[in-house]
Amino acid sequence: MNNTMKLFTLNSNRELAEEIADELGMSLGTSSITRFSDGEVQINIEETVRGYDTYLIQSTSEPGSEYIMELLIMIDALKRASAQSINVVIPYYGYSRQDRKARSREPITAKLIANLLEAAGTTRILTVDLHAAQVQGFFNIPVDELRANNLLSDYFAAKNLQDIVIVAPENAGTARARRLAEQLDAPIAFIDKQRKNAPDSVHGINIIGDIQNKSAIIIDDMIDTARTITSGAQALIELGAADVYACATHGVLSEPAVTRIRESALKEVVLTNSVRIPKQKRDEKITVLTVGPLVAEGIRRVQENESVSTLFD
Amino acid sequence: MNNTMKLFTLNSNRELAEEIADELGMSLGTSSITRFSDGEVQINIEETVRGYDTYLIQSTSEPGSEYIMELLIMIDALKRASAQSINVVIPYYGYSRQDRKARSREPITAKLIANLLEAAGTTRILTVDLHAAQVQGFFNIPVDELRANNLLSDYFAAKNLQDIVIVAPENAGTARARRLAEQLDAPIAFIDKQRKNAPDSVHGINIIGDIQNKSAIIIDDMIDTARTITSGAQALIELGAADVYACATHGVLSEPAVTRIRESALKEVVLTNSVRIPKQKRDEKITVLTVGPLVAEGIRRVQENESVSTLFD
Amino acid sequence: MNNTMKLFTLNSNRELAEEIADELGMSLGTSSITRFSDGEVQINIEETVRGYDTYLIQSTSEPGSEYIMELLIMIDALKRASAQSINVVIPYYGYSRQDRKARSREPITAKLIANLLEAAGTTRILTVDLHAAQVQGFFNIPVDELRANNLLSDYFAAKNLQDIVIVAPENAGTARARRLAEQLDAPIAFIDKQRKNAPDSVHGINIIGDIQNKSAIIIDDMIDTARTITSGAQALIELGAADVYACATHGVLSEPAVTRIRESALKEVVLTNSVRIPKQKRDEKITVLTVGPLVAEGIRRVQENESVSTLFD
Amino acid sequence: MNNTMKLFTLNSNRELAEEIADELGMSLGTSSITRFSDGEVQINIEETVRGYDTYLIQSTSEPGSEYIMELLIMIDALKRASAQSINVVIPYYGYSRQDRKARSREPITAKLIANLLEAAGTTRILTVDLHAAQVQGFFNIPVDELRANNLLSDYFAAKNLQDIVIVAPENAGTARARRLAEQLDAPIAFIDKQRKNAPDSVHGINIIGDIQNKSAIIIDDMIDTARTITSGAQALIELGAADVYACATHGVLSEPAVTRIRESALKEVVLTNSVRIPKQKRDEKITVLTVGPLVAEGIRRVQENESVSTLFD
Amino acid sequence: MNNTMKLFTLNSNRELAEEIADELGMSLGTSSITRFSDGEVQINIEETVRGYDTYLIQSTSEPGSEYIMELLIMIDALKRASAQSINVVIPYYGYSRQDRKARSREPITAKLIANLLEAAGTTRILTVDLHAAQVQGFFNIPVDELRANNLLSDYFAAKNLQDIVIVAPENAGTARARRLAEQLDAPIAFIDKQRKNAPDSVHGINIIGDIQNKSAIIIDDMIDTARTITSGAQALIELGAADVYACATHGVLSEPAVTRIRESALKEVVLTNSVRIPKQKRDEKITVLTVGPLVAEGIRRVQENESVSTLFD
Amino acid sequence: MNNTMKLFTLNSNRELAEEIADELGMSLGTSSITRFSDGEVQINIEETVRGYDTYLIQSTSEPGSEYIMELLIMIDALKRASAQSINVVIPYYGYSRQDRKARSREPITAKLIANLLEAAGTTRILTVDLHAAQVQGFFNIPVDELRANNLLSDYFAAKNLQDIVIVAPENAGTARARRLAEQLDAPIAFIDKQRKNAPDSVHGINIIGDIQNKSAIIIDDMIDTARTITSGAQALIELGAADVYACATHGVLSEPAVTRIRESALKEVVLTNSVRIPKQKRDEKITVLTVGPLVAEGIRRVQENESVSTLFD
Repeated sequence: MNNTMKLFTLNSNRELAEEIADELGMSLGTSSITRFSDGEVQINIEETVRGYDTYLIQSTSEPGSEYIMELLIMIDALKRASAQSINVVIPYYGYSRQDRKARSREPITAKLIANLLEAAGTTRILTVDLHAAQVQGFFNIPVDELRANNLLSDYFAAKNLQDIVIVAPENAGTARARRLAEQLDAPIAFIDKQRKNAPDSVHGINIIGDIQNKSAIIIDDMIDTARTITSGAQALIELGAADVYACATHGVLSEPAVTRIRESALKEVVLTNSVRIPKQKRDEKITVLTVGPLVAEGIRRVQENESVSTLFD
Repeated sequence: MNNTMKLFTLNSNRELAEEIADELGMSLGTSSITRFSDGEVQINIEETVRGYDTYLIQSTSEPGSEYIMELLIMIDALKRASAQSINVVIPYYGYSRQDRKARSREPITAKLIANLLEAAGTTRILTVDLHAAQVQGFFNIPVDELRANNLLSDYFAAKNLQDIVIVAPENAGTARARRLAEQLDAPIAFIDKQRKNAPDSVHGINIIGDIQNKSAIIIDDMIDTARTITSGAQALIELGAADVYACATHGVLSEPAVTRIRESALKEVVLTNSVRIPKQKRDEKITVLTVGPLVAEGIRRVQENESVSTLFD
Repeated sequence: MNNTMKLFTLNSNRELAEEIADELGMSLGTSSITRFSDGEVQINIEETVRGYDTYLIQSTSEPGSEYIMELLIMIDALKRASAQSINVVIPYYGYSRQDRKARSREPITAKLIANLLEAAGTTRILTVDLHAAQVQGFFNIPVDELRANNLLSDYFAAKNLQDIVIVAPENAGTARARRLAEQLDAPIAFIDKQRKNAPDSVHGINIIGDIQNKSAIIIDDMIDTARTITSGAQALIELGAADVYACATHGVLSEPAVTRIRESALKEVVLTNSVRIPKQKRDEKITVLTVGPLVAEGIRRVQENESVSTLFD
Repeated sequence: MNNTMKLFTLNSNRELAEEIADELGMSLGTSSITRFSDGEVQINIEETVRGYDTYLIQSTSEPGSEYIMELLIMIDALKRASAQSINVVIPYYGYSRQDRKARSREPITAKLIANLLEAAGTTRILTVDLHAAQVQGFFNIPVDELRANNLLSDYFAAKNLQDIVIVAPENAGTARARRLAEQLDAPIAFIDKQRKNAPDSVHGINIIGDIQNKSAIIIDDMIDTARTITSGAQALIELGAADVYACATHGVLSEPAVTRIRESALKEVVLTNSVRIPKQKRDEKITVLTVGPLVAEGIRRVQENESVSTLFD
Repeated sequence: MNNTMKLFTLNSNRELAEEIADELGMSLGTSSITRFSDGEVQINIEETVRGYDTYLIQSTSEPGSEYIMELLIMIDALKRASAQSINVVIPYYGYSRQDRKARSREPITAKLIANLLEAAGTTRILTVDLHAAQVQGFFNIPVDELRANNLLSDYFAAKNLQDIVIVAPENAGTARARRLAEQLDAPIAFIDKQRKNAPDSVHGINIIGDIQNKSAIIIDDMIDTARTITSGAQALIELGAADVYACATHGVLSEPAVTRIRESALKEVVLTNSVRIPKQKRDEKITVLTVGPLVAEGIRRVQENESVSTLFD
Repeated sequence: MNNTMKLFTLNSNRELAEEIADELGMSLGTSSITRFSDGEVQINIEETVRGYDTYLIQSTSEPGSEYIMELLIMIDALKRASAQSINVVIPYYGYSRQDRKARSREPITAKLIANLLEAAGTTRILTVDLHAAQVQGFFNIPVDELRANNLLSDYFAAKNLQDIVIVAPENAGTARARRLAEQLDAPIAFIDKQRKNAPDSVHGINIIGDIQNKSAIIIDDMIDTARTITSGAQALIELGAADVYACATHGVLSEPAVTRIRESALKEVVLTNSVRIPKQKRDEKITVLTVGPLVAEGIRRVQENESVSTLFD
């Protein structure tokens, strides 16, 4: 593979990129991504990419605008430097919640980003657990969506918890909860926040489904400010759950997520490193699994023309 | 408006097109859509469209391939005949369930159709209640998605049912159920089919949420073979619901939907005419509301540059 | 070749696809093309195509809309499954007669189909005997047009007919007649239907050129309802031809073509299997030659980067 | 119209452009199209075109490369100067004979030109009598093809010739001959040059159809070197025609066309000014009809959104 | 104009946008551009834009990535909200110095931005004094480049300085210096930094041209860190200039530009407000002219289809 | 390389193409580029290109329109003949001076040509010394710009001239002069023509910088009519230069360049053969260096995926 492909990273998640490179037995390509004095992104690719299949690793996490611009500019540079293909590896696809017009005159930013990536010269997308699978269809190029949920279910399976219930944190998340429930052979429930004055609600939160004396595992695709899972955990405990876990692929952890988690009724929050989780966010309640081997294997299969789907089936 | 726009229909739903034309105080443009001896679609537009804003009404319901080809060919004809704009009005957007790769090597046909419509020359899409709102993002042209759910909630509100519960027919439908619940000030529940051996299941169907002695209204975006709603209704009744209604915007009603509905525990099924429902499918249990005034008003606002969103807000 | 290419077929002409596969010493790729309950096309590709050159065989014969949609959806699936190239093999290119605006406000459907094929992701077209060679120019991707006329001329040469005249069935077909005449060293004539009251016409048909006591061979690119060739044959016989044959590459054979041929003055009609001719259409007057070896050789040369044109020169 | 449109010409046919402007009661827009010292095309548009519908008149006759480049560069200038629309009026569409791959590895230049015109920014094409109507389908923008054949048929009708036969100059031209024959109520014949040793040929030319003692009118879409029509005329006379006329829309008249015509058996050659025919080519045998009023009326109808097709029906 | 156009601003330069709106006698459209908790750009357009010509004002100054993303997302929102046209007004076009590959494997970011703007849906660009005029050619849509240099020359003309010399700050800037020299009827010189050991250099800076006892005015298109102009001023003074001014259209003023200017030999630095210059940067040596009336007049002329070029000629 | 690539030339510069082929140890591909009787370009590619990387050599020098059309038509032919890649080698990129709107309503022809080349099917551009490096950004495909300036500096270095000054022929050329000055370790000056009445001007020409008793070398990217360099040389001599040389990459040499050079004060003019310089232009004052080895090495590196940039660094 070393003769036909090169792996590059940008600034969002160098640790993960290095782990992926290690898994593949490769070095990251030499490049620097800095800023000019006025803050404009400056890219220097220090080795030839002419004729190579290139893989470019970047999550579009916060600061999203910076990381998206880095990505687009690097794609332009690779294209003009005659890379054979430009495979963009986005472990966390930002703006994925803006995937439709929820109100009038809203942008559909997740689609805009897809258009920008294609306009810049992207050949293929590798990503992990999209907020909505329909985002695949925002692209006209191939999208390989890797699934990290096995990591989460394996982790909980190894814990050997008794009498589990999988809880969706809002109306729209029941399909994701259903999949985890399948893997752990558990029933599901969901948190219904809209109906404030329901007779059986706690702090305006209503739980649909049976959670009495059970170990509840809330599952979401991403944890941003952690309001949803911490208030949900509180309600679950007050309504009779034995204890409450939460998990998600993407640990966005915007302020004050870590504080909220620390002070919450949650026993443990399980995330992956699709978004870089820096030391100061690594509370003892937070467990971080790595998607490195998964992404590395995905890249290897793409490069060697093997089926990617059999990774999950 | 008569001086700047023309309204055309194809074969999928002429009754609705005529109703829309009536609402707008216009006549449908003169055209014929027939078949050559070998079955190829033959289009004749019998009046000039040069410089006109054209609106073309066609649901891509069964037979989907025929109706999609009619639509694409008519768009090509309008484009080459110098129409000023080609506004495609699709009350029912077919293939909308194939909006992501659920398994490997699947097509994303809902996106393909979007690409084909744009390639043929479409200027804008008007549609009603998409299966997933993300389909809006499959287009780079403006999409105005009209909402028919007010029709359904108004209908049920007028019935004055007591002690209602809104039921989502599967994991993924809870957001839609939540909206109707909001409008009728009711709690929600959902049908969980995946967990066959759950202790409280009936015929392998489990209900999450309280439905005891309530009037349950199952809501979905479309009713196709009716298996889901009829088996759901059976389970609801057996588990204690007082009676069961179902509603959906799109009455696809593939065989043997009508028979199933007739023989089911359902008290009433409420649909709209976004898909044409012919006489032989008009069982007495089936109520058909019309989207004609809604679509007509949508067209009028587009043509007169008024806000469409205020139709729903 | 087995290591770099895969061959798939859809539903229009599986016999031909299997013959082509046999000629190439390959198996057809495993896939199923069925219908959902509401008639929507359902495609399952059962083996990896990642990195493979794929060849997809489908004539867009009746039912044209179904077969075109199957084709476009399969192309979308192959593209998203990361096929290296998507070579669409269309032995019979439907809608080819709608290749210009014959009347105002007509579509140019043959061009629309070309645009749709490109929009879906086609890399190359292989086809046989286009109705008008200009359709090649409807594409921006390479088109390899295979010529089946050698099959027809070889067949007639082997018959050793004496005193032949090649007859074009209408004004526009004289160039095609001229080519066959060249190969059989024969003069040409043509049928002129427009001038109903010409003194030497029969049933409103006039023959330009000498056909007295000759074996007339009418040649067309396709035989659809067979009205033209059967009425032409009648006129030729009445005006003095010894006997009349007809031939064409594409046997569309719409109702009531077979009955007309059976009851006509024609001695024999020679076609190829570019369009599947089912058993019930296989009258004893109809001879079907196979384009399988020709198409297989075309595919092989494309795949191995050999000149395709030398197949005919 | 003067408030919304501007008319420009380039160098190929200023006389015709001025005639068109006169017919429309307008002046040509002020611009100069010259050459830099190294021959590069220099364009100066001397008045604002911002927001105007512009019509740009240019035949792509000899020197074709110069006139095509002038056209493309002017389109670029109009686009960048914010013209509302760029309607390219091409009375003679050059390269139209290279509309398919007649041999392997040939370009399809007529399609290339279409792509170049669209890439440069053309909004619409107005043209006259394409070599093959399929060239319409080379474009994705609207093409209005004006028909000059009424000019030719009216001219011959006014001559009151007796016992006419319309002669196609080669195999492929019979459809065009058929249309003129229709208008003059005459039979048709055609010249078959391929069969050199046919017993009834003259100088290797064979006439299919009856021309004895008739006034033969050869019709073609263009007359280039005039070899075909002059040798055809010779054969027609020798085989018994009373006298021979020729006509065509486009008088390309490459060397030595005029000499050949002057010295030929042809009585008269009727052309239009779609290609500029300079004084030195205006032999007394050559009659030049003007397409000015036809093109002017076509432009007026386009600009005022009236049907163009009714000009011919 | 109020009936057909709407003016919006984003966050980079609200003061200028408000000044432009005032000049046009309009209000800015109601919208908010904020951030989600994870920093993603959130846009709310609070009034209908359907059918309106929209003008969107945003300089892509620091933080460039944020302002570019705001711009692209707003364009997407306007496009999907059916704006009639989207005219992007960029008083300062960032990344304009990365307009070519100065070293191998560099991006051409100025072109990338152009592609992104077009991909998002921009209809037209209005900008002021591009770094290189060739950037106009990076677009396929119309670009109206306004010239602010008259503001600068008028300002200096009003000062009535005697014995002026215009100085280009580096090799490439002589054309710009030449234009200002023309307007002030002055000779030119330039600063040549490359030849460190030239005998007549000061601090490695060499002045080509006569500056003895003259008032030198250094002109550049933008002032970023101010190193070039402050070191140039020092050299000019040491080599005999009477006093030194500097001017530029775009006051990027990255750290430590203001400090450098304050402590330099420069007497005055004249800039415009194409980039917002906040209070803390408004040193008493820095004069800021407004481009508001110029940009407002440019917008008015575009909207009313008047010639923009006559603004400068 | 012979197994994967083919080299073709068109008519502008066959000598250079043959030299490049020799350097690469290859033969030029067999093709003919002639004219039809009406002047239309006729291309015949006489050998298969299916699957080959093709390199097509053509300068777009005078007659530019002809050579551009040849190039575009050949690209179309290669694309339709299934070439694997189409690498267009343009030693002299014509129209490069029209790279921006210098006046209102001008075309940007250098960008138009870029668009046409991409629309026709070009995969990559190799060119030599663009007039402005920004033209690279007119393309979305990779552009490898080779630098011929080393040829010029090596030539002058070998001459061992004493006391050199490098002179830019106009304001805009100082960056190019600076590079040559660097290589020859010389100071620079420039010719300032705009200020006619400056006290120290000669014939309206002013020299900025010290040229007394020096050997002046004027450098430009191209020499067209030679007016600039010959009048500059005259002024340089009259103002005290010892002697004057001129050099440029591209010898456009429009009339009356050669006469002017012969009769001028110039001692020698050094050019390359990027544009073919025919015998009648080869005055003894004109030295022509060859870019053949440079271009050949560029092609080899592209084809073998080696870095091209290291050719200059």
